[in-house]
Amino acid sequence: MPSLFGGLMPKVVASAPGKVTLFGEHAIVYGYPAIVTSIDRRVYVTSEPRNDNTVKIMALDLRVPGIIVTYKDNEVVVGTDYGQSLSAVAYLNKAVEIVSEYLNVRKGVNLIVRSEMPVGAGLGTSASVSVATIVAYAKSMGYDLSPDEVASLGWRVEKEVQGIASPMDTSIATYGGILKIQATSTGKYVREKLNTETELPIVIGYVERTATTKEMVKMVKKLKERYPDLVDGIMKEIGTVTLEAEKALLKRDLEKVGELMNINHGLLDSLGVSNYRLNEIVYVARAAGALGSKLTGAGGGGAVIALAPNTQERVEVAMKLHSTMTLKTRVGVGGVAVKELEKAP
Amino acid sequence: MPSLFGGLMPKVVASAPGKVTLFGEHAIVYGYPAIVTSIDRRVYVTSEPRNDNTVKIMALDLRVPGIIVTYKDNEVVVGTDYGQSLSAVAYLNKAVEIVSEYLNVRKGVNLIVRSEMPVGAGLGTSASVSVATIVAYAKSMGYDLSPDEVASLGWRVEKEVQGIASPMDTSIATYGGILKIQATSTGKYVREKLNTETELPIVIGYVERTATTKEMVKMVKKLKERYPDLVDGIMKEIGTVTLEAEKALLKRDLEKVGELMNINHGLLDSLGVSNYRLNEIVYVARAAGALGSKLTGAGGGGAVIALAPNTQERVEVAMKLHSTMTLKTRVGVGGVAVKELEKAP
Repeated sequence: MPSLFGGLMPKVVASAPGKVTLFGEHAIVYGYPAIVTSIDRRVYVTSEPRNDNTVKIMALDLRVPGIIVTYKDNEVVVGTDYGQSLSAVAYLNKAVEIVSEYLNVRKGVNLIVRSEMPVGAGLGTSASVSVATIVAYAKSMGYDLSPDEVASLGWRVEKEVQGIASPMDTSIATYGGILKIQATSTGKYVREKLNTETELPIVIGYVERTATTKEMVKMVKKLKERYPDLVDGIMKEIGTVTLEAEKALLKRDLEKVGELMNINHGLLDSLGVSNYRLNEIVYVARAAGALGSKLTGAGGGGAVIALAPNTQERVEVAMKLHSTMTLKTRVGVGGVAVKELEKAP
Repeated sequence: MPSLFGGLMPKVVASAPGKVTLFGEHAIVYGYPAIVTSIDRRVYVTSEPRNDNTVKIMALDLRVPGIIVTYKDNEVVVGTDYGQSLSAVAYLNKAVEIVSEYLNVRKGVNLIVRSEMPVGAGLGTSASVSVATIVAYAKSMGYDLSPDEVASLGWRVEKEVQGIASPMDTSIATYGGILKIQATSTGKYVREKLNTETELPIVIGYVERTATTKEMVKMVKKLKERYPDLVDGIMKEIGTVTLEAEKALLKRDLEKVGELMNINHGLLDSLGVSNYRLNEIVYVARAAGALGSKLTGAGGGGAVIALAPNTQERVEVAMKLHSTMTLKTRVGVGGVAVKELEKAP
């Protein structure tokens, strides 16, 4: 789509939500459906036109402490050298590069990133950063990309930075809502938006991970090599839980959704992907009044989600005692959004 | 079998082991096999002839504090009134009654009970009491009952005291070893002794139960009514775990046995029968070096078993921190045994 603004570049801010997996992690690797959802914690990327060709990235809260990184003529200047933060900043840089290539135009901007969620907690922050950057940068050059374009470019950003990536996180960051996602036999992913207005109140608890997603997926693969029928059967059960959960979500039967979260957690535990700390958070959440709770994501540490309508406060208190960090949020919120702040002079 | 001693009654002591379920609890209710095993904690019943027709029961450590109960001409005299202990004593009284009826002879004896395990911890103490009493009482009257007679009478004792009982506990107390047990379509139980010399070192941790076995079985039944396919599938998986475990036990592949215990625990957790405290013990045991750990029995509190060859000491220390009581023991030991202490004058 051609620029509507010609040389007049506006200052814009785009925001994209984080995500959690409600049901079906690990089983999705074996062809079963998963249900993923946006959460009401967003990444905001402000794109501010510059008069030169420099792209300057200010990621003041992508990690503590904040850093300022400048990319100038393919050279990186880091204000404060916190190596770890570079990984998050890499998504911004790659997003700018891919959008420039796709639109065949490159302009200088200041990109200011603000995040309502931490990096590396399994909440899809890097996908939110990628998607929000794509939309903000394109918009500030006068281009409105379609959601499908954004999702596709976002997935490319994640693939190029990480080497390999699932389209799940960037889909959710783009479209929002609650999605059912399934791999087809040809290796493609089919997503289907659940037609529900449900915005469920949840609490997220996070503990440090002791293994990467890749390691956890590999561990499960090895378990399957040792017990093919057994692990096949467990994956199939997780698939059944996910389909039951889809029905319960559409009916807004939260008791059932919670119960199915508990069942899903046990099945994940049987695969060996839970651990002491995750189970602790899962059980204290239930004791504090959550309708259901489970680990979310690949496991081996990471996040736990608890469904807590009307009990969010006390469930969070209980989970906080056992977590490194907790967040109260809602799931099923809208996807990427952009607005113009002011026209450039 | 006729008495070999005529009027000369010997003083004898019989002992019978406790039991734990290694694999397959709950699934056995739905027709899948379970593996149960004796443990090296026994109940000893000494039967001492008296000159009158009184049966006097001294259960000094069946609960703390010990009690003395006298049954005289169908009248009960309790030395110290600890109501709860009566339930354990009821098995002794019923065993005497059923043996008398079966052999058509009744003689006065002092029955002295000593137990190496607590009552009510899910270790099958009541079955051990019943079986040891049957054998001691019969033997002191000069009768050697066959194992099948003992198992059958033991089951009757449990059924008559409890109203309903599985034959599992009394089978194990009688035959010892590791048994695979399965219900047939006609409601009968088939038992098969696993041909293994394996005596596995385990640690048992116990916490108070918050629900009875009956309540837990009912809870699972209700879950199955809500999710028939799902719960069917989980039961089938537990059945598969049990059959894999049978193979691993026969090969003495303890790593695999441990791994399958972990899988079994997760599947039980998915049925909702675990709880916070049980999971805590399960996970600390693994962290302390156990090859595997799981809840054993109906759940809702009760016992956890951890397979701990060479690590029993440190696994027990870890489990003790989170349990009301722990026991180091071995599984697969011999069944009921009796010996004559002295002839009566």
